[in-house]
Amino acid sequence: MEEVYIFGHQNPDTDSILSSLILEGLEKTLGEYNVKAYRLGKINKETEYVLNYFGIKAPELLEEVKEGQPVMLVDHNGFDQSVKGIEKANIIRVVDHHNVAESFKTNGPLFYLAMPVGCTATILREMFKVSGIKMDKITAGLMLSCIISDTLLFNSPTCTDKDREVAAELAELAEVDINKYGLDMLKAGTDLSSFLPEELINIDSKTYVTNGIKYQVAQVNTASIPDVLKNKTEIENAMKKFMEENNTELFVFLITDIIENNSQVIVLGKQEIAEKAFNVKIEDNTAFLPGVVSRKKQVVPNIDKIING
Amino acid sequence: MEEVYIFGHQNPDTDSILSSLILEGLEKTLGEYNVKAYRLGKINKETEYVLNYFGIKAPELLEEVKEGQPVMLVDHNGFDQSVKGIEKANIIRVVDHHNVAESFKTNGPLFYLAMPVGCTATILREMFKVSGIKMDKITAGLMLSCIISDTLLFNSPTCTDKDREVAAELAELAEVDINKYGLDMLKAGTDLSSFLPEELINIDSKTYVTNGIKYQVAQVNTASIPDVLKNKTEIENAMKKFMEENNTELFVFLITDIIENNSQVIVLGKQEIAEKAFNVKIEDNTAFLPGVVSRKKQVVPNIDKIING
Repeated sequence: MEEVYIFGHQNPDTDSILSSLILEGLEKTLGEYNVKAYRLGKINKETEYVLNYFGIKAPELLEEVKEGQPVMLVDHNGFDQSVKGIEKANIIRVVDHHNVAESFKTNGPLFYLAMPVGCTATILREMFKVSGIKMDKITAGLMLSCIISDTLLFNSPTCTDKDREVAAELAELAEVDINKYGLDMLKAGTDLSSFLPEELINIDSKTYVTNGIKYQVAQVNTASIPDVLKNKTEIENAMKKFMEENNTELFVFLITDIIENNSQVIVLGKQEIAEKAFNVKIEDNTAFLPGVVSRKKQVVPNIDKIING
Repeated sequence: MEEVYIFGHQNPDTDSILSSLILEGLEKTLGEYNVKAYRLGKINKETEYVLNYFGIKAPELLEEVKEGQPVMLVDHNGFDQSVKGIEKANIIRVVDHHNVAESFKTNGPLFYLAMPVGCTATILREMFKVSGIKMDKITAGLMLSCIISDTLLFNSPTCTDKDREVAAELAELAEVDINKYGLDMLKAGTDLSSFLPEELINIDSKTYVTNGIKYQVAQVNTASIPDVLKNKTEIENAMKKFMEENNTELFVFLITDIIENNSQVIVLGKQEIAEKAFNVKIEDNTAFLPGVVSRKKQVVPNIDKIING
């Protein structure tokens, strides 16, 4: 039986990596496909913390897929955020919690399940329930970690009642203290000391194309915004280089304080779009965005609204 | 509570009309939204037969939606096949069994459920099960009718084991004899005597845009292909007029014999695409396609493959 690849988006976050592994487990139990989880990039520190905590190995790196390769996408759909060669792959499943991107399409019918919830794992929890498959302790722990990561421990506006309800249930199954485990995990992700500026802007970075305008939104989590801003000039140089190499017209780099739940933003390129989108004045390429923590709910829709007029 | 519109595709078939009504019923029971089913075009004879059989009223006609209107799409996703104004609507649900079209996208997260099965109603059956909502006799009858219609009584290659399994279960609930009811229903749909040629090509007609090429595939069901071909010249004139008015580059009109499960096709415009797609010689604008009954599985993918090179 041909191997079916499962993977999340480029610059993978915790939800992308772990949801690939969780879906791999579910599909193996269902037995219809010969599946294998992959990752499209480096494991970040937060995900590493979770994998170590539960004693799980990271999936292998996938660089490209060939024409006709059967694949299952988790935590994304847009081709701009997916693997090289995705246009010619055979997409048989999508499990996702984002909007359907302009760049996404399929040649044939498929199984597509999206729900407007905080992370992909919450949807996978529903799929387990519907399939009547019993969940083990580690899978529950991985799912819980995805919810904590994507909702910043329930503080993001993307967090729904469903995520909270599922998280409580999973914490019991996984036998972890949500708040202690959650903070430890998020803090592990804020250790940015080992990253070069060009790596920093790539930890969790996504490409968008709206109405022909190509823009990038990257995000890092921190416990101290000033610590990250110490390297502002170097970060800006890395952003400039990225923009030149990728024909990016606007680059928004969010530095999110996960304790206080605010963001500082560095913006290069078409700054006037960002000024209108966030209703702020950008000075010296930067601005403070009180209460902004979610790229998906508080950044991308606002930018798209301005671009679409 | 703002009214949420539910509708299927333009030139609605039985699955589009009835799935709108079935989802309306499900959502009303769930109670989260104030929903109302609509239709985007004339009710065809087959659907009329079903509505009369079960004593159900057709949904009202919807011509356009305004910006921000919350909507739920069934049985389609492509904007080319949807209501006027869909680009600016707020799409909160899609329940569909087609590929994700090039023209589809959303501005925000949504509930999207697609499965590779024969009709939308089969997916709605799953949604009923997952919700734990008991199904009444009439809903079961409507669902069964969708399956019979879209799979041509299980003869189309789009029909899956799941559709057959669900249909058997629904027939019992609805207390109908699948074969007798199914043939009566399909035959009601083959009564084309009252249609003008320009109506005939619009009974079940869909627009596709692939790689910038806009094409149209229309289909009628009949018990006698020669009967339909009597008006070949008039049909061709109607197709020509449609193509001029809509900048269509290729028009494929399938006349499907639902007894023998073959199709005769009339092709205008870029005939060379159709010749390659079906591996036939088109003479006098027409060709016989043995065993071809499904637009979705046997026509559109083949055309797309040629267009995409």
